[in-house]
Amino acid sequence: MTDPISKPRGRPRAYDPELALERALQAFWKGGFSGTSLDDLATATGMNRPSLYAGLGDKRTIYIKAMQRFRNHAQRHFGQALEARAGDNSFADVIERYLKAAIELEAEHPDTGISGCAVVSTATAEALVDPQIRQLLDDVLHDMDEQLLTRLQDAVEAGELPANTEVGALGFLLTSTAHSIGIRARAGQERQAVEDLAGPIAQMLFHATRHS
Amino acid sequence: MTDPISKPRGRPRAYDPELALERALQAFWKGGFSGTSLDDLATATGMNRPSLYAGLGDKRTIYIKAMQRFRNHAQRHFGQALEARAGDNSFADVIERYLKAAIELEAEHPDTGISGCAVVSTATAEALVDPQIRQLLDDVLHDMDEQLLTRLQDAVEAGELPANTEVGALGFLLTSTAHSIGIRARAGQERQAVEDLAGPIAQMLFHATRHS
Repeated sequence: MTDPISKPRGRPRAYDPELALERALQAFWKGGFSGTSLDDLATATGMNRPSLYAGLGDKRTIYIKAMQRFRNHAQRHFGQALEARAGDNSFADVIERYLKAAIELEAEHPDTGISGCAVVSTATAEALVDPQIRQLLDDVLHDMDEQLLTRLQDAVEAGELPANTEVGALGFLLTSTAHSIGIRARAGQERQAVEDLAGPIAQMLFHATRHS
Repeated sequence: MTDPISKPRGRPRAYDPELALERALQAFWKGGFSGTSLDDLATATGMNRPSLYAGLGDKRTIYIKAMQRFRNHAQRHFGQALEARAGDNSFADVIERYLKAAIELEAEHPDTGISGCAVVSTATAEALVDPQIRQLLDDVLHDMDEQLLTRLQDAVEAGELPANTEVGALGFLLTSTAHSIGIRARAGQERQAVEDLAGPIAQMLFHATRHS
């Protein structure tokens, strides 16, 4: 999981839209939407501007497609972390696994230097002036909330969490922490500092559900 | 506190750098750094480009100055929320006050339509390609962490929180939630939904410190 999205090397063939989209994703993820020009995208994909347009569309269309690609990947990634049952250990382990999945996804990739959530890091700046990008950001935040809330409600039904758990508050705290982990990574903060806190945070939140 | 930063009306005089900076802040806060052109800044400030440059500097310099203005404002704003002692009520009240301060600062301003933390919302997209903006983002995140940690440590010393409170974990959860409140506001999420969760989140975190 250290290399969650493939980072292909070499010049992609013009007829490989998936490879071009992956490279466009990397470019936007690094430089943002407004900060990435069509020329940057042409360089990143190894395609000239007319074939880029013909193959993937205009800049906003490419951005939205690239971010949907990231969105699907992120949802699978968090889904895997949430899949495991607490089993013999406490639900604190599931919480810690979720936080570590956020770190894994959003910490700086050593080979590319890219960090953060691709969507949160780049759509937030555009959201007030671009309704389509605002919608994308809102959709992704809802994905995250829903995916986690579903798991927390399952945990209550399965007895992994007490019946009176405030799942809304707990879910908000956890997805918020995942958002922030990405922002801190963009700022260049050390991965280790967050990793060291994942256990104590998970314990703290788990204890909160047992004694509220 | 509903209108934390002044939003002056009318054309500012060229020799009022504070007013021009406030208007530049509003422009960047709304449109981001890369998404805001020098022409946009000229329109926002009512200054032509040569006087803008002479008065405030180049685009990056104006951005940094404007964000420092926001940073000072935000620090005062959170400082006021953290000032009060728990007194007869539990420290959950202080936590709730902190979360409500984040909502107050970052929820959509009805008169401008602007929302989010000015720095987190705009510096995150630029951080990987602009070392100066990355430094600004890192500084602001550190401000927030330090300000809250100092208050939590005081609370432990004053007996408002138990001696064994994991202040690092609690502080990380609270500043992360503040970051996320701004991102959710940028996405257009309803202020009320977050406000309704502030109380339960504060109770949950306070209980966590009492039973860990």
